[in-house]
Amino acid sequence: MSSSTQPFSFDPTAPQFVAHEGGKMEVQATKPLRDATDLSLLYTPGVADVCLAVADNDELSKRYTLRKNTVAVISDGTAVLGLGDIGPLGAMPVMEGKAVLFKHFGGVDAIPITLESGSTDELVETIVRMAPSFGGINLEDISAPRCFDIERRLKERLSIPIFHDDQHGTAIVALAGMINACRVTGRDLADLKVVVSGAGAAGVAVTQLLQRAGLRDVIVCDSRGIIGQSRADLVPHKAALARTTNPRGISGTLGDALNGADCFLGLSGGSVPEEQVATMAPGCFIFAMANPTPEIHPDIAHKYAAIVATGRSDYPNQINNVLAFPGIFRGALDAGGVQITEQMKLAAAQAIADLVTDPSPERIVPGPFEPGIAEAVAAAVVAHANRG
Amino acid sequence: MSSSTQPFSFDPTAPQFVAHEGGKMEVQATKPLRDATDLSLLYTPGVADVCLAVADNDELSKRYTLRKNTVAVISDGTAVLGLGDIGPLGAMPVMEGKAVLFKHFGGVDAIPITLESGSTDELVETIVRMAPSFGGINLEDISAPRCFDIERRLKERLSIPIFHDDQHGTAIVALAGMINACRVTGRDLADLKVVVSGAGAAGVAVTQLLQRAGLRDVIVCDSRGIIGQSRADLVPHKAALARTTNPRGISGTLGDALNGADCFLGLSGGSVPEEQVATMAPGCFIFAMANPTPEIHPDIAHKYAAIVATGRSDYPNQINNVLAFPGIFRGALDAGGVQITEQMKLAAAQAIADLVTDPSPERIVPGPFEPGIAEAVAAAVVAHANRG
Repeated sequence: MSSSTQPFSFDPTAPQFVAHEGGKMEVQATKPLRDATDLSLLYTPGVADVCLAVADNDELSKRYTLRKNTVAVISDGTAVLGLGDIGPLGAMPVMEGKAVLFKHFGGVDAIPITLESGSTDELVETIVRMAPSFGGINLEDISAPRCFDIERRLKERLSIPIFHDDQHGTAIVALAGMINACRVTGRDLADLKVVVSGAGAAGVAVTQLLQRAGLRDVIVCDSRGIIGQSRADLVPHKAALARTTNPRGISGTLGDALNGADCFLGLSGGSVPEEQVATMAPGCFIFAMANPTPEIHPDIAHKYAAIVATGRSDYPNQINNVLAFPGIFRGALDAGGVQITEQMKLAAAQAIADLVTDPSPERIVPGPFEPGIAEAVAAAVVAHANRG
Repeated sequence: MSSSTQPFSFDPTAPQFVAHEGGKMEVQATKPLRDATDLSLLYTPGVADVCLAVADNDELSKRYTLRKNTVAVISDGTAVLGLGDIGPLGAMPVMEGKAVLFKHFGGVDAIPITLESGSTDELVETIVRMAPSFGGINLEDISAPRCFDIERRLKERLSIPIFHDDQHGTAIVALAGMINACRVTGRDLADLKVVVSGAGAAGVAVTQLLQRAGLRDVIVCDSRGIIGQSRADLVPHKAALARTTNPRGISGTLGDALNGADCFLGLSGGSVPEEQVATMAPGCFIFAMANPTPEIHPDIAHKYAAIVATGRSDYPNQINNVLAFPGIFRGALDAGGVQITEQMKLAAAQAIADLVTDPSPERIVPGPFEPGIAEAVAAAVVAHANRG
């Protein structure tokens, strides 16, 4: 089932294992069950009228069942954190943790579901079949490129919000950080020459959201170098990137792309040599978001960049999806279970950026425990939903 | 999606709708999430070690994830209560109510999942694919006869407890009631001539459990009358019943079966004419368990029977699955997520019967809110699990 060969230590006394003892979540009733009268209302015979009323009526099911406030956090365990394909059992602690974050930050009830992997068809069918149980679906840690196809097909077939967080959560928060990096440095977002390292789930989604935000000069690199029309080895989703990015038509390595670039967005892991970093434009931004090891160490990055961000909590400017997904689903559910649009993602990024009233090089995004983040993101989503 | 044509009234001010407003359950974290340190233990980076440890290790996944205490309550909405095929949205309030009962009575975290229906193959595949998310699976309100096949195939393919409550919960509680009916009347269970009305999920399971408990003379009737070897119209699961029941080889109607019978077990709905009830043996038992309308009204039944039970909470002797399923899963989870065996079901029935220390014609089973029921059932299950 698992194809990971990562080393790990199993020590039941280590704090991370203690914290996971018995799991991290439970189910609670929200209505009192004190006696036979309560039982007759919450269960038979009273429940029968409610069943018949909500049968085939999506709107009533969102009022009288947990669908009102519940999303599934679904993974097949094929791309868990940076651990790779560790299977559905291995993915469970991450999905359960995500469910805890959904409730804590967004007040959203989230149910972790990990699936035995299979073909794209099988995963789509499985999720469609269980969709009546939920008010929304957060996809998580599904390997690229099929994560694109799975999300697209689910959005076509289901009317509830579908959101692949590895793609869009990352994209929203990265864009929020770039908006404030521009505010701090007096740059114009649209004029930035950006290099995205990584053409997986996050790399593709970040690129697309940046383009929607107005950026014109984005170059994406994969492990073989710059993605462009001259590459003959591109799988379909990379061939699509080649058509819409790299407007100057350059070819070569990541190092070639970085020469003169205004912004590096690391979404790939790997390591960028300092001599390549040194060729970036003065006052550049470096977002080295690989976890736990940034592509460019912050100490190196600060020698060349005006703004440095990572994915880590122990450095300033943590680009963390938790700033986005709780509010995205809070808003989508509050708006009646609507689809999440590109406009909502842009508005969410702007809302996160605007929460930082006095941005500085050390503070381009709020910290995850600052109050009001999910509320602000949710309000942006609801505003766009109401606009139609 | 729904094929039900049942009448119902949607009145948002009616108490059953008020009780369902916003759904009936929520998810809660069981571990504190106060700051970045907690976040780093419950989520990245601390979660990574836990993921790798539980990947492919069922035992560790039952210790460090919600699988330790969580079952799925799964239905495809094809046989919901007495309402028929009302689809997955319509089934949701029942599954959610069941989840509330699981927690209240058994301390089991239960997650309602309703599935778009499909072929037996499709349902089995869907459930197998999501099984890594749960510590057990309670099947619910799936139409016969495919519920038999689905349960059997899931038990073959999965190592976690699988339990179709409409079958086995009903069987366990009916047997518990019959044990005490015999105690009250000084009868020997094995000698009873029993007529089971209904050859659906509950009728089949009750018959099989009674036979395992030692009963020899069980006759099952479907809508066309007595099931026996002379019937040429039998679908496979009824043909199987014909081979193992009806030892006197009688044929005819339900009325013919009732003539001289010691016990009527109604699991079908419909109505039995009083003149047929009058032909039952003196001192007989009538368990008219159809909900909400018993096959024989208790006032009629009392004219002929020594013991009368129904499925209703407003009459004495309610044969209610809630006496069984919370303790069954509590025990199966406490025993490490074991399969639920026939011996466990028999032991559970005996445990429920034994809780009534002073049985009487008006009290052959405990009421659902009496303390200690799930604990006693769980202890019986665990004892059998430990016995191997």
